[in-house]
Amino acid sequence: MTLSEVNAAPVAEIVQALGGVFENAPWVAERAAGGRPYDTVEALHAGMMAAVRMAPEGQQLAFLRQHPELGGAAARAGQMTEHSIAEQQALGLNALAEERAAEIERLNAEYTKTFGFPFIICVSRHTRASIISQFVRRLDNTADVERRQALDEIGLITRLRLVALVEGPGMPVTVGALSTHVLDTARGRPASGVPVALYEIDGEQAIPIVQTLTNADGRTDAPLMSGGPVRIGHYELQFSVGGLLSSGGRGFLDVIPVRFGITDAEAHYHVPLLVSPFAYSTYLGS
Amino acid sequence: MTLSEVNAAPVAEIVQALGGVFENAPWVAERAAGGRPYDTVEALHAGMMAAVRMAPEGQQLAFLRQHPELGGAAARAGQMTEHSIAEQQALGLNALAEERAAEIERLNAEYTKTFGFPFIICVSRHTRASIISQFVRRLDNTADVERRQALDEIGLITRLRLVALVEGPGMPVTVGALSTHVLDTARGRPASGVPVALYEIDGEQAIPIVQTLTNADGRTDAPLMSGGPVRIGHYELQFSVGGLLSSGGRGFLDVIPVRFGITDAEAHYHVPLLVSPFAYSTYLGS
Amino acid sequence: MTLSEVNAAPVAEIVQALGGVFENAPWVAERAAGGRPYDTVEALHAGMMAAVRMAPEGQQLAFLRQHPELGGAAARAGQMTEHSIAEQQALGLNALAEERAAEIERLNAEYTKTFGFPFIICVSRHTRASIISQFVRRLDNTADVERRQALDEIGLITRLRLVALVEGPGMPVTVGALSTHVLDTARGRPASGVPVALYEIDGEQAIPIVQTLTNADGRTDAPLMSGGPVRIGHYELQFSVGGLLSSGGRGFLDVIPVRFGITDAEAHYHVPLLVSPFAYSTYLGS
Amino acid sequence: MTLSEVNAAPVAEIVQALGGVFENAPWVAERAAGGRPYDTVEALHAGMMAAVRMAPEGQQLAFLRQHPELGGAAARAGQMTEHSIAEQQALGLNALAEERAAEIERLNAEYTKTFGFPFIICVSRHTRASIISQFVRRLDNTADVERRQALDEIGLITRLRLVALVEGPGMPVTVGALSTHVLDTARGRPASGVPVALYEIDGEQAIPIVQTLTNADGRTDAPLMSGGPVRIGHYELQFSVGGLLSSGGRGFLDVIPVRFGITDAEAHYHVPLLVSPFAYSTYLGS
Repeated sequence: MTLSEVNAAPVAEIVQALGGVFENAPWVAERAAGGRPYDTVEALHAGMMAAVRMAPEGQQLAFLRQHPELGGAAARAGQMTEHSIAEQQALGLNALAEERAAEIERLNAEYTKTFGFPFIICVSRHTRASIISQFVRRLDNTADVERRQALDEIGLITRLRLVALVEGPGMPVTVGALSTHVLDTARGRPASGVPVALYEIDGEQAIPIVQTLTNADGRTDAPLMSGGPVRIGHYELQFSVGGLLSSGGRGFLDVIPVRFGITDAEAHYHVPLLVSPFAYSTYLGS
Repeated sequence: MTLSEVNAAPVAEIVQALGGVFENAPWVAERAAGGRPYDTVEALHAGMMAAVRMAPEGQQLAFLRQHPELGGAAARAGQMTEHSIAEQQALGLNALAEERAAEIERLNAEYTKTFGFPFIICVSRHTRASIISQFVRRLDNTADVERRQALDEIGLITRLRLVALVEGPGMPVTVGALSTHVLDTARGRPASGVPVALYEIDGEQAIPIVQTLTNADGRTDAPLMSGGPVRIGHYELQFSVGGLLSSGGRGFLDVIPVRFGITDAEAHYHVPLLVSPFAYSTYLGS
Repeated sequence: MTLSEVNAAPVAEIVQALGGVFENAPWVAERAAGGRPYDTVEALHAGMMAAVRMAPEGQQLAFLRQHPELGGAAARAGQMTEHSIAEQQALGLNALAEERAAEIERLNAEYTKTFGFPFIICVSRHTRASIISQFVRRLDNTADVERRQALDEIGLITRLRLVALVEGPGMPVTVGALSTHVLDTARGRPASGVPVALYEIDGEQAIPIVQTLTNADGRTDAPLMSGGPVRIGHYELQFSVGGLLSSGGRGFLDVIPVRFGITDAEAHYHVPLLVSPFAYSTYLGS
Repeated sequence: MTLSEVNAAPVAEIVQALGGVFENAPWVAERAAGGRPYDTVEALHAGMMAAVRMAPEGQQLAFLRQHPELGGAAARAGQMTEHSIAEQQALGLNALAEERAAEIERLNAEYTKTFGFPFIICVSRHTRASIISQFVRRLDNTADVERRQALDEIGLITRLRLVALVEGPGMPVTVGALSTHVLDTARGRPASGVPVALYEIDGEQAIPIVQTLTNADGRTDAPLMSGGPVRIGHYELQFSVGGLLSSGGRGFLDVIPVRFGITDAEAHYHVPLLVSPFAYSTYLGS
């Protein structure tokens, strides 16, 4: 759907098309329709968020309460909007290891008891590990701060959903990305053919995300992560430089691990490797 | 025992004191006694090795055959010289995981069948992983080359044993070492209080070796490995710089792993870390 | 003029338009006209060079002899094609310091005496210092090798002239460039507002070439050198990081000079600076 | 003279031996003699400084006034204590270029007019450039602050003089130093035979200080500066790595200049170079 179509369509059609953007709350789309025309998708999203924020307290709370529990029974049973199903599945929240499922269940219970609505977070911006740490951190918030935080997270969630549904000018979706390049500082040229593997580090576990090779420019053909927020969490890049350095390196360097944290889901992280047979350096580049 | 005492003592006493240096072969000490006086411990060791190399082929072969199997039944049962027991235990060869014990048993059988004597290696210079790779590599040797290699390994083994027994001038025991230091390039000073952990990397396993903190000079109070050969193998240093960089680093760097190989057991490996909140470099220093 | 126009025009017009590309040799354009049509500018240039290489020895030599002396009386008096005047002036060869003018005069005389034609070099690819060293080096060539070298240089010269005259497909003019960027590795972001100055190093002299500031991306708005070959020679970049590091750097770093050589006039040299208050690194990047 | 001798000698002898430590003020040594015995040279120096600080205002001021002008007529005529002559000559203050001599003369006049005594500074801790900048900076002080500063400088001056005269325990003379080492990160070993030159940078001028070669450890046989305070100022190290990298480096790196400031005359500055054919880094090490 284009933004022009959104601006021109009857309200019922708007609700039909965008009613699912806000979880179980078609009234948000309906009210926002009253604010048309919108010049940009950004403005449309702002209109929808304004509808939520201006809603009577009772309705707002009811809205928050309608959100599915994270990784909960609804998640496992698939009883959520398709959006939520897809988002939670992408992170594997429908298939957690038993111990972690139990931890999330316990946190869910404590959170709901404390704040009166389920824990809401923009799942697409997080790894499982960072969701847990957000959970723990936010349990310490006051009720007011946490209500605002929940609405902010809804803003992040619905922004991504809206962008996927409406084409049009002006949603400057700054998406995150992770990229790398490898430079051979002994030969003065990009290092091509170097195997690069990316892992998410979750406690003791290293979960493989992508495996690729550097090309003639010492870069990977595609960014290692891109196309949306990069999940906040801990990562390890492994550069297999053994073949590049071969016998000249006397076996000193083979697989070079570079471990780093991503704390800004909308930033572009460029993490290059400058390598010679007996030294390397890495940095957060631009 | 001092070298002067070795030079002055009756032969029987020499055999008593040094007879165990060469596995089950007191005759080596006995013959070497005939070459006294020795000016240096180095010369004494050379005299003993000469006795072995000049022995009639039959005796030399019998000598090789008397060596215990690596990680074999004798190792497990403790039926070896005390030297061998200590050396094999230090590497945990008496308590191998089942799968690896089976692999070594198979290699032992194949080796003994091929060369007519057990696989001899200076265990103190190797990790378990490098012993396996030496095993595999040496099975491809010709009989002549491998007999020489076995004698060379005996030279390395007995040299270390002799040094521990005889005090005196002239054994320039070049021992290996691993050291590090951490420099904070944002503040222009050594980084103190940084937790440093060393692991041996054995396939997927990371075996902890030592855990320490950097001191006011950014160094560790003692080398991470020293006092003898450093075991040939793969290692990972982990520098926990999270506290050093704290909030200034926005969570980009926390634990910095540095993985490297040691291929020369008698060399000094200095592996420093130069770190600022968003960049680090490491190198083989001196 | 477009390549299509070149392909369609009467010969006289071609000679009129392109006759000056080869110094005082309109016959080159005339003969090359016979090889039309040309699919690419590259092919047109190849046709012209073929005309030169296939010319009878006498004509070829006469052609070489018609070239102006480098920085010679003709240069000073402006008696050359406009092309040559512009090329030599761009390098200041019309206004050399006395000592160097004398050196070039001496080299010109020796060269002409040795080879029977003046020293020909694609001036646009060189600094004054590298022209002198080429002069000296080429005086050692055999007559045959040097004749080929002179023709190769004419190829380089005329290629640049032709590209400026004829628009059309297929001249993959790989032009050289020099660029930089500055990264603040203590703050994890591009260093903006850093004054960057580029000097050509000619013996003891540092000749200013360009002075600029890094922008928000830590880059310069335009490459430091670009738009043609980069002159072979020695250079120094000076990064004034004092303001960036300010008091945190305790005055350790202020102006950082990075000195390097350019040996490939058609390559892109990217020379970045990674800097924290007490450390920096630089490299030939891509 | 040893500290024990100082403690035991008659007062007249003390005055004879140490009377020149404080410029034209033998009474300082005389009074300090009353405080004997001193356990350490440090304590002896503290005793002498206490005598100065406790002197009646008139005597203190007279003492300050007796100091020679910096680079003034007395300096040029040699009318100072031998200490002052040696210290000012070491910095070439007796033979300044005309322009700078004029500048110092002007500053001397302004300073004396402002504060009523000549500008006193521990010359051994400064380059000519940093003396000028101290001069300018201190002219802005209040009279009180500047009197204290002058006494502090006298403390620094006399401390160095006393250490040279009295042997004994407890003067923890932290002397400054400048050292370097060069590491070849492509070959994984110290870079030996690399020419290293140190220059003092004084405005546009580069004044040669020392020229040497790296040894087998990649270090210089002696520190580049040591044995006393290192003069506060700007410096440039030049590492001639062309021979080390030779043809592998394609002429990219040849002479690597490293420019830095020394702001702490009593610190040890270690400024290493890690170099591979197409990259290098340097840092303030320890």
